[in-house]
Amino acid sequence: VGEFELIKRFFSPERYAADVCLGVGDDAAVVIVPSGQRLVAAVDTLVSGVHFPDNTPAADIGWRALAVNLSDMAAMGATPRWFTLSLCMPVADERWLAEFANGLRAAAEPFDVQLIGGDTVKGPLNISVQILGLVEADGWLTRAGAHPGDVLFVSGAPGEAAGGLRVMQESLHGGTSDAKHLLQRFLRPEPRVMLGRALRNVATAAMDVSDGLLVDLSKLSAASGCGAQLFLDTLPQSPALHRVFGAKMSEQLMLNGGDDYELLFTAPAESAAQVAELASQVGVTCSRIGVMDASGRVQCLRNGKPVAMDVRGYDHFS
Amino acid sequence: VGEFELIKRFFSPERYAADVCLGVGDDAAVVIVPSGQRLVAAVDTLVSGVHFPDNTPAADIGWRALAVNLSDMAAMGATPRWFTLSLCMPVADERWLAEFANGLRAAAEPFDVQLIGGDTVKGPLNISVQILGLVEADGWLTRAGAHPGDVLFVSGAPGEAAGGLRVMQESLHGGTSDAKHLLQRFLRPEPRVMLGRALRNVATAAMDVSDGLLVDLSKLSAASGCGAQLFLDTLPQSPALHRVFGAKMSEQLMLNGGDDYELLFTAPAESAAQVAELASQVGVTCSRIGVMDASGRVQCLRNGKPVAMDVRGYDHFS
Repeated sequence: VGEFELIKRFFSPERYAADVCLGVGDDAAVVIVPSGQRLVAAVDTLVSGVHFPDNTPAADIGWRALAVNLSDMAAMGATPRWFTLSLCMPVADERWLAEFANGLRAAAEPFDVQLIGGDTVKGPLNISVQILGLVEADGWLTRAGAHPGDVLFVSGAPGEAAGGLRVMQESLHGGTSDAKHLLQRFLRPEPRVMLGRALRNVATAAMDVSDGLLVDLSKLSAASGCGAQLFLDTLPQSPALHRVFGAKMSEQLMLNGGDDYELLFTAPAESAAQVAELASQVGVTCSRIGVMDASGRVQCLRNGKPVAMDVRGYDHFS
Repeated sequence: VGEFELIKRFFSPERYAADVCLGVGDDAAVVIVPSGQRLVAAVDTLVSGVHFPDNTPAADIGWRALAVNLSDMAAMGATPRWFTLSLCMPVADERWLAEFANGLRAAAEPFDVQLIGGDTVKGPLNISVQILGLVEADGWLTRAGAHPGDVLFVSGAPGEAAGGLRVMQESLHGGTSDAKHLLQRFLRPEPRVMLGRALRNVATAAMDVSDGLLVDLSKLSAASGCGAQLFLDTLPQSPALHRVFGAKMSEQLMLNGGDDYELLFTAPAESAAQVAELASQVGVTCSRIGVMDASGRVQCLRNGKPVAMDVRGYDHFS
């Protein structure tokens, strides 16, 4: 079974949507970008032992490889449409591939996003997905649009994914429903695509939380030329995280844990009610966790008083 | 120096063309696809020790990573516009990165193709480039359009790149101008973008020769539902290849050597003169090397008589 056949067998959609003129199997794919739309492109790569433990099930790796890229589309307010996959594997294990493809497909189907090309090479496990999406030509979300006075929001419960990773690595509380919940949040992050779309005309800035809430908030603030005050009392609490890790460690995981793929975003104070309404419509909890200011730095507050917190985000090569 | 800074420092263009609304540095890039154009997308990944020897200079790796992707655009008759880069490295060596970026830039500049996004991760050396291009909505080249009776062409001198790889691996004829020429053909493949563009309305099928002339001709024939006769006497001869490897080995390298990134294409017999004219205009030699037939297989002929030849293309996992 050659490279070409492997890709075709496991990864080709049964049929393509009408916007795919040419899919997997030629030198390149050809797709239609409707007029009035802009093309949105990103790439995210997962390396075994770096981005997930070596013993992660193949189906979860497949889900994750696509989900982290869908999350980039969510952060832009874009609709994901197509992706390419570069899969580097030490051996072509057909069972592993079938499970990986199942996980990938499971992540793709809710968003009707289609694989249009790929490359399969031999080497240490490395999965690179390039996502392509569409957004209206009149605007998209960036990290750079926040203004002092804007309210800061985060979706979901940051910290749960980092808790899940620790559960996995240290075999904590094996089998309890809390452990399973956290593990699922790490292994199967849910890209907030619908939320990103809903926020496109409301949010002033957005990004996805991949490296940790504090470090990603620093990036959003810097890109916007702002500062931020983060109210520790208002962080969305995860009961499962609390029960497994206790209050103090939970806060650390909330602030510095990565891999959540929740949306961190800002909106004018007068739009806060609209944000709540939109979040409710798409079924995602969004919490007000702070306010942007002009200080140029990120400051944590508890009971209204400044608190010094470590910022330890996950950054390769640092 | 964090991931984000590394990418920005070495890989961001100084300024973007007008079709880039948002470049490197946010969750995704945003670009404009003009109406009347289709988006063309491909991905090709290079792994150290698999696609190039471990001791390959960083600048050559950078060139190659982009050039092999530009070659996919050439094979479609498309104009390359943008690319993303996923760079997986064991350590962030600034000198290596600077040289790699120089090679990448050197390959990008002649085509004004722009880096719009990337990911830098830690792990075994693996370079994945996703190329994005444009082609007119009224048609593009594929592997599937050849008909029996069409003439078969190849650009350049296939086999030289495989000769160069052997020169490099076995330190052959070090320092002679022949050795240098072949080495250059391996290390710095020249994507035939202008030729692909010129052929868009003439060629019936096209692909780039990456795995070897015979195996790639088999793929083109199969995709087109044809067969092919390859006239060994008409293969474009490389004097350098002959002098270093002799006649017999040269033929093997021409037929089964990979990495040439020349265009293999077909055209109706009545368009042969037009092909020669277009090739001359873009300054690339194209040779008539065979004819398509309805046999469903690839047959080599010498002095008009069938000859059995090994087909040994390079296929990962085979």
